[in-house]
Amino acid sequence: MNFASDNITGACSEVLQAIVRHNEGPALPYGDDPLTAAVEARLKEVFETDLVALPVVTGTACNAIALSCMTPPYGAIYCHRDAHIHVDECGAPELFTGGAKLIPLEGGDAKLTPEALEAAVMGAGVVHNPQPAAVSLSQGTEGGTLYSLEEIAALSAVARRQGLKVHMDGARFANALVAQDCTPAEMTWQAGVDVLSFGATKNGCLAAEALLFFDKTLAVEAHFRRKRAGQLLSKMRFVSAQLEAYLENEVWLRNARHANAMAAKLSSGLCALPGVSALHPTEINEVFCRMPQALTDALLAAGFVFYDGYFGPGTVRLVCAWNTSEESVDALLDEAARLAERVQAAE
Amino acid sequence: MNFASDNITGACSEVLQAIVRHNEGPALPYGDDPLTAAVEARLKEVFETDLVALPVVTGTACNAIALSCMTPPYGAIYCHRDAHIHVDECGAPELFTGGAKLIPLEGGDAKLTPEALEAAVMGAGVVHNPQPAAVSLSQGTEGGTLYSLEEIAALSAVARRQGLKVHMDGARFANALVAQDCTPAEMTWQAGVDVLSFGATKNGCLAAEALLFFDKTLAVEAHFRRKRAGQLLSKMRFVSAQLEAYLENEVWLRNARHANAMAAKLSSGLCALPGVSALHPTEINEVFCRMPQALTDALLAAGFVFYDGYFGPGTVRLVCAWNTSEESVDALLDEAARLAERVQAAE
Amino acid sequence: MNFASDNITGACSEVLQAIVRHNEGPALPYGDDPLTAAVEARLKEVFETDLVALPVVTGTACNAIALSCMTPPYGAIYCHRDAHIHVDECGAPELFTGGAKLIPLEGGDAKLTPEALEAAVMGAGVVHNPQPAAVSLSQGTEGGTLYSLEEIAALSAVARRQGLKVHMDGARFANALVAQDCTPAEMTWQAGVDVLSFGATKNGCLAAEALLFFDKTLAVEAHFRRKRAGQLLSKMRFVSAQLEAYLENEVWLRNARHANAMAAKLSSGLCALPGVSALHPTEINEVFCRMPQALTDALLAAGFVFYDGYFGPGTVRLVCAWNTSEESVDALLDEAARLAERVQAAE
Amino acid sequence: MNFASDNITGACSEVLQAIVRHNEGPALPYGDDPLTAAVEARLKEVFETDLVALPVVTGTACNAIALSCMTPPYGAIYCHRDAHIHVDECGAPELFTGGAKLIPLEGGDAKLTPEALEAAVMGAGVVHNPQPAAVSLSQGTEGGTLYSLEEIAALSAVARRQGLKVHMDGARFANALVAQDCTPAEMTWQAGVDVLSFGATKNGCLAAEALLFFDKTLAVEAHFRRKRAGQLLSKMRFVSAQLEAYLENEVWLRNARHANAMAAKLSSGLCALPGVSALHPTEINEVFCRMPQALTDALLAAGFVFYDGYFGPGTVRLVCAWNTSEESVDALLDEAARLAERVQAAE
Repeated sequence: MNFASDNITGACSEVLQAIVRHNEGPALPYGDDPLTAAVEARLKEVFETDLVALPVVTGTACNAIALSCMTPPYGAIYCHRDAHIHVDECGAPELFTGGAKLIPLEGGDAKLTPEALEAAVMGAGVVHNPQPAAVSLSQGTEGGTLYSLEEIAALSAVARRQGLKVHMDGARFANALVAQDCTPAEMTWQAGVDVLSFGATKNGCLAAEALLFFDKTLAVEAHFRRKRAGQLLSKMRFVSAQLEAYLENEVWLRNARHANAMAAKLSSGLCALPGVSALHPTEINEVFCRMPQALTDALLAAGFVFYDGYFGPGTVRLVCAWNTSEESVDALLDEAARLAERVQAAE
Repeated sequence: MNFASDNITGACSEVLQAIVRHNEGPALPYGDDPLTAAVEARLKEVFETDLVALPVVTGTACNAIALSCMTPPYGAIYCHRDAHIHVDECGAPELFTGGAKLIPLEGGDAKLTPEALEAAVMGAGVVHNPQPAAVSLSQGTEGGTLYSLEEIAALSAVARRQGLKVHMDGARFANALVAQDCTPAEMTWQAGVDVLSFGATKNGCLAAEALLFFDKTLAVEAHFRRKRAGQLLSKMRFVSAQLEAYLENEVWLRNARHANAMAAKLSSGLCALPGVSALHPTEINEVFCRMPQALTDALLAAGFVFYDGYFGPGTVRLVCAWNTSEESVDALLDEAARLAERVQAAE
Repeated sequence: MNFASDNITGACSEVLQAIVRHNEGPALPYGDDPLTAAVEARLKEVFETDLVALPVVTGTACNAIALSCMTPPYGAIYCHRDAHIHVDECGAPELFTGGAKLIPLEGGDAKLTPEALEAAVMGAGVVHNPQPAAVSLSQGTEGGTLYSLEEIAALSAVARRQGLKVHMDGARFANALVAQDCTPAEMTWQAGVDVLSFGATKNGCLAAEALLFFDKTLAVEAHFRRKRAGQLLSKMRFVSAQLEAYLENEVWLRNARHANAMAAKLSSGLCALPGVSALHPTEINEVFCRMPQALTDALLAAGFVFYDGYFGPGTVRLVCAWNTSEESVDALLDEAARLAERVQAAE
Repeated sequence: MNFASDNITGACSEVLQAIVRHNEGPALPYGDDPLTAAVEARLKEVFETDLVALPVVTGTACNAIALSCMTPPYGAIYCHRDAHIHVDECGAPELFTGGAKLIPLEGGDAKLTPEALEAAVMGAGVVHNPQPAAVSLSQGTEGGTLYSLEEIAALSAVARRQGLKVHMDGARFANALVAQDCTPAEMTWQAGVDVLSFGATKNGCLAAEALLFFDKTLAVEAHFRRKRAGQLLSKMRFVSAQLEAYLENEVWLRNARHANAMAAKLSSGLCALPGVSALHPTEINEVFCRMPQALTDALLAAGFVFYDGYFGPGTVRLVCAWNTSEESVDALLDEAARLAERVQAAE
């Protein structure tokens, strides 16, 4: 009944059990434990490449530390105007980068376009202008959409030509991955991504993200910057334990597939109702609709929880998670159908 | 056999069970869940006063966010030269405060003195000088010692007179509290402390600390600064669950008493050996000794893990934790006694 | 012959003589000299109100220090997308504010609109969003246009309602003032401006600007922030000497009137040519035109200096200064007329 | 009669005339003028090496920008506890470096020792510790003393071994140079200095300093950091004009020699009085004495201006400048002699 966000959920059982399992015995602190090393090794396999992996506990910290390794303090970071790093992190990127400037760009379906990026980059080498440093794209996006591999590659091509590093905010990386039906490698470094914020919290962990540096030269500073950001947990094994369980036996893919499937069902059901239409295509586990306010109000009054007015009046956001039950989706759709009729009748 | 630190341990069973227990069902994210509210209420009881409590996950973040609410960016923060905030946080306070200056002061047994503080404060209102803003003291200290209530009050009195806010780094707050045999209120706000970094990780949690603002006016900015620091966990209930269990049924006091008792035994046993002497009195759960290098080397070679050279050559640090077994203490003392004889014989 | 900018000029004779005159004898350093006090007193008269005046030497510093007194580090500052503070200061506002975020807004003729401002402000009190803190408008604008008093008041009204402080970047304040034919008071605090960057360098000084705080509560931090920014000159009398001479006998108004008149003549002359049209109305001392590239190239080849492509291909900027001679304007217009004919013939 | 500081003076006539002379005609702004290039070329000759020279207008900015190019934000900068950068710049180095930490060291006569530096450097590569980045020494020192060439070389040797860059705060560089009777090259890069804050304001300019990078790799960021710091003057020619005149015909050396000679006379005269003794040897243009308070009070009451209590009660500072007259020195010495007798008689 609660579609407010994927972060209202607890952890999946595999992850929880891993924490319990790894509680025994001493372990070297600050990430010098063997489990943390094992997680890095596992991520190299998953991504089929060498990389540096640094676990942290929030997406905001993950993004902000990543960006701080990719720009001088007088740099410019290009992102979509709806990007989480720009809108929803209370200025964390500005804090951790020492004052770099985020340049918000327009783009349909919450996606950057190569053209908009190309047009925005300016002033390289000119002492007056913030220096073009990085581009950050969210996969999946803040609008519940996806970049195709070609779109990522096209953005990366602009970035390379303009001397920008490429960051991917993967708060919902698994949801995007299973939707794309491609490999992690294809969606990241093979498409030009230098640094990935690999999110796991929303998709079944308690609090676990990993900074992944495909460009290892960018990781040199990262260890210091993570510590300085207060994200080097002394008992790091508990973050690593989550990531280990998350990656084992395709738990992460299973969780993401389920969430996406529930969202797809929810989206098509809602959009079949009179007056309801998709604001963006539902490509991952988030549903963005235009919905008559009377219907929205009635659903909320009926006890369903979701976000009213996310992208302005008349728009709603509903999110499915790794543990969203099909029953709850059906319940919402049934109630919505019933209420929609009544709303129409009342008009 | 491992006396390296109190952060090599896992979580105590009560804390672990609380995480498992609170995993069920949805919860509002970002600390808007009822459990987080309950923890704040509980802390008000524990400290017998109104306060604002903000859970975070590392001591470094806790200290740095606290300080950022207590100083302008051009402020000066006075602390002991061995203070964790000065030596061991890779500049986190400077990052989070926007560049405030930590002024390291001398003082025996890792403790600030009112005289040293008084002598150091300078330049209030003078535009050239960093502006006196705060004093930070660690209770227990980085040298394993304690401030008496009178000493805290004396430092606070200087602080009040000089217009400084008072921060207490309580990474080992529980260990200090049970050693002092006083109330939390007496050791903090009644002695003049404005903001406390209430540590729990080392004493039986996985990753849980709380920023406690006794001066609630200082907390206004704290919510934004915590978010911006990447320390507002989306699934905050899991941090709060740890704190709830930690505070329930005196778990925190029990854990701390045990650790202190083990350290006391270890300290007196070691200091009875020829050539070994206390570097500082053992007042909490850390033992600092001068030890003949040959004995140190032999103990390390025998598989005991502890810190060699912590305060320079010939000094060692051994830390006991909530789960340090008396057997391991006895084993170390037995072996040390055996080795000390051999070392003496060899001389 | 040089219309590149108003900062290619030297200082006017009154200003230069004041520097020479005030070179004699000792003076208290760091702005504690009587001349600096006299300048503040004079500015109170000019602006017909109490205020705090802090001289500095660059517009970038003036703006950035001003903004740093008007926002927390996690604040949002709204400005036009072409604003100097956003585009041309290499991130100085981000540095001095400790990482506040500039939110660029669209608006015709380089001007903010109350509607765009109203629509952009969001998230007050919401911990995830940068906190609405200030709006900055440039008078005259980066497009050579002016805000009417009503427009300033309308923006200020939105700002007041939304809890924003109002900053005015007055790098060309005198040019705007004489164009508006109003009093300094009317164009600033009476229209809701809290802090003014009062520019003088471009209009006849060597290097002199003044931070003017009409809201004196915002000035409390400014003295420290100016020092910390390296803008508290030890021999401040030389900045104050410039400002004194600048304000005396209406030197500043005379200089600005001349520059504006030259720009008006230049603008109307150019826009009478075939294919040339105003990009923005010429309201101060800057001329922005659309000009056929062949004509632009020919003028540049003929030795006239101005900015080609300022707002994209096919646009030019020409700036007149306090000492631009009517002869040079005539020379440019004559040559442009001659060249325009030739360009047309060639087509 | 005013011995308060060398920054109470105006500019020497050569410098003032250069400003007037270079006021004519247009000049490219932001340091792209030929005069600024000529000054850099001249400095290469003066220092007998390739270098990058960036003029700025305050010593605080000069130091802080220099340091910001020599350390990561999580770096440690070692300096004397009395260093201007630590005590007198309101945290400018912390601001411009993004929060690097200044580590104050003890040392007699306001001078760093290689031993103290060696002992302080710690934690390279350890993620918990601020990373050793730079050492900053003042030549002449804040105590009016000098490092010998051997002392500079010895500090540089420690720095090299420890991976530190070497900064010299040369606010009184000329005074130190003529006192050492060596070449600028010998006192800087040949002794291991990487970056010099070349001060000119105190010694006869209005407001002119130059950042000199002997290690040109450190200068790459400096252009952006200077702009971002608000120190890239649009009419830079006026700073360069000062520096040109300052360096021409040995004006800088003449000014410094005079100031030093006056200080030497003042120092020996004062120290011959009963109860007066040198706090530090007078090696440049500053005199630091222990003086009976009654004598200090009497001299101040007689209208002489100098700093009472500079290094604590009973100490005074008197500074001679490029234009301190021998008459004023004699007047002070005569009056002091007369008053000293009276003071003695009164005891």
